[in-house]
Amino acid sequence: MTELIIYSLDLFGVAVLSASATLAARGKGIDLFGVIVLALVTSVGGGTFRDLVLGNTPVFWVRNDIYVFVVLASVILTMSFANHIHRKRQWLLYMDAIGLATFNLIGIQVAQSLDASPTICIIMGVMTGTVGGMIRDVLTNDIPLVLREEIYALTAIAGGVSYFATESLLDEEWRILLTLSITCVLRVIAIRKHLSLPTFTSKH
Amino acid sequence: MTELIIYSLDLFGVAVLSASATLAARGKGIDLFGVIVLALVTSVGGGTFRDLVLGNTPVFWVRNDIYVFVVLASVILTMSFANHIHRKRQWLLYMDAIGLATFNLIGIQVAQSLDASPTICIIMGVMTGTVGGMIRDVLTNDIPLVLREEIYALTAIAGGVSYFATESLLDEEWRILLTLSITCVLRVIAIRKHLSLPTFTSKH
Amino acid sequence: MTELIIYSLDLFGVAVLSASATLAARGKGIDLFGVIVLALVTSVGGGTFRDLVLGNTPVFWVRNDIYVFVVLASVILTMSFANHIHRKRQWLLYMDAIGLATFNLIGIQVAQSLDASPTICIIMGVMTGTVGGMIRDVLTNDIPLVLREEIYALTAIAGGVSYFATESLLDEEWRILLTLSITCVLRVIAIRKHLSLPTFTSKH
Repeated sequence: MTELIIYSLDLFGVAVLSASATLAARGKGIDLFGVIVLALVTSVGGGTFRDLVLGNTPVFWVRNDIYVFVVLASVILTMSFANHIHRKRQWLLYMDAIGLATFNLIGIQVAQSLDASPTICIIMGVMTGTVGGMIRDVLTNDIPLVLREEIYALTAIAGGVSYFATESLLDEEWRILLTLSITCVLRVIAIRKHLSLPTFTSKH
Repeated sequence: MTELIIYSLDLFGVAVLSASATLAARGKGIDLFGVIVLALVTSVGGGTFRDLVLGNTPVFWVRNDIYVFVVLASVILTMSFANHIHRKRQWLLYMDAIGLATFNLIGIQVAQSLDASPTICIIMGVMTGTVGGMIRDVLTNDIPLVLREEIYALTAIAGGVSYFATESLLDEEWRILLTLSITCVLRVIAIRKHLSLPTFTSKH
Repeated sequence: MTELIIYSLDLFGVAVLSASATLAARGKGIDLFGVIVLALVTSVGGGTFRDLVLGNTPVFWVRNDIYVFVVLASVILTMSFANHIHRKRQWLLYMDAIGLATFNLIGIQVAQSLDASPTICIIMGVMTGTVGGMIRDVLTNDIPLVLREEIYALTAIAGGVSYFATESLLDEEWRILLTLSITCVLRVIAIRKHLSLPTFTSKH
């Protein structure tokens, strides 16, 4: 049951991140195929990199190609209703938060199932949620957001730490719920309050 | 026999893509070693990424280092006769088409030999042909061409679809020839007619 | 004993490259988390790519997470004493040379232990030392240094060739010392003399 919910949230996250990527590609002179590449990279890039460094190959979307179809469906729907979705993009930010919290959890669980250390598990969680967006930014020639103004990785780390800190205190289901909630709520707060980490300047 | 022809076309494709990359590096302030890196990335980057996500490691050029020597020879020859080759660069475009059609076919066959689904096989074909060029563009700080104005991925998909659509109709040899021809001919048409996919703009 | 020295030099190299990356991130509007990402990528990116293409997974820092803690410690110390270290950055260049010579040697040894050919071993050595810096440059939106003005890859190749050229002449320990020395000394000479490879221009 828990697994089914996580799997549904995972597909939901892939669809939402694909939609965000599609909107971000508008007006940059990127063709239809390019939009699909960007959506794929953004939504499955983090998990791909996680599977590669863990040696968990073939990577997840090669084993289960439903992920590819979810991305394609999301891109087509988003392009068809782009103006409508663009007006509701505030909603997308909140849905992004749910998706990335799920990616964080899955990254932790995959690493744990392969006997990685807690430190590595937390890093794999953060990677699963952030690497896709970084590659997207590189492909579109921006400085990757995560290097510039995002506190989001920190919210993922907070979720990951809570997962391991409660290992002897809570049941698996409650730890999962806690991790998802912390990552998601902190991220929404960061978005609403425009929180950011200080940048590293020459004068300090 | 078929295998030997595909292998020869593969090495030919690696040599041609290395030559293209070498010409593209001219006048950008890239040193000799950088040209070799660009040529390597462009010609074997796609197949490397394919082998990585399929878990088909060590990757192909680690198992058979002749690919490295073909790249080196191609770079040295291209630099020596750069002005001459530059004048004939129209030819290079057609040879590129043959090379990329071969990469597409090999990507499909490698994925199929590892029991991937037809969807994944087609994606692996496209990747084998396009990822190298995308990394090259990222390294030289351009917006990747495949995100901007290329219909080439679509020609690779058409070749891949034809491979699986004729599965129960044709012998393996004929399907290979069909796939190579469709990918290559469509690409040449796209180049000559300056065909491109529509870009995704704000007004639509 | 030899192994312990190499392991120590490896951790030293990771710390030094992280410090260099941290200094390079100053004043670019990169936040604290971004600096850590850059330091990780720069110091362990090359070895990660080497392990991936060799199929040597999980990659080294997943198997031994001390590398992650060395990077974190180095980033925190460098940020705390940034102005002080910046004044001594000439020292950092020499320490970089020691670190990259070690990475080169380790890349060769890892590839050799997996029965790769000498050519592939030498390439893996170069990759271990250079790929991290290339990804760092891509993330911060520079043309990768190694494509622009560095003779450093050549010094790594020289070290790698000397390793295999002396295979039947010297004991393992002496070959290791020779390879480290050649790579390191040539690099220091290249830095001091501002040596560079010629770039590939249109007029030649």
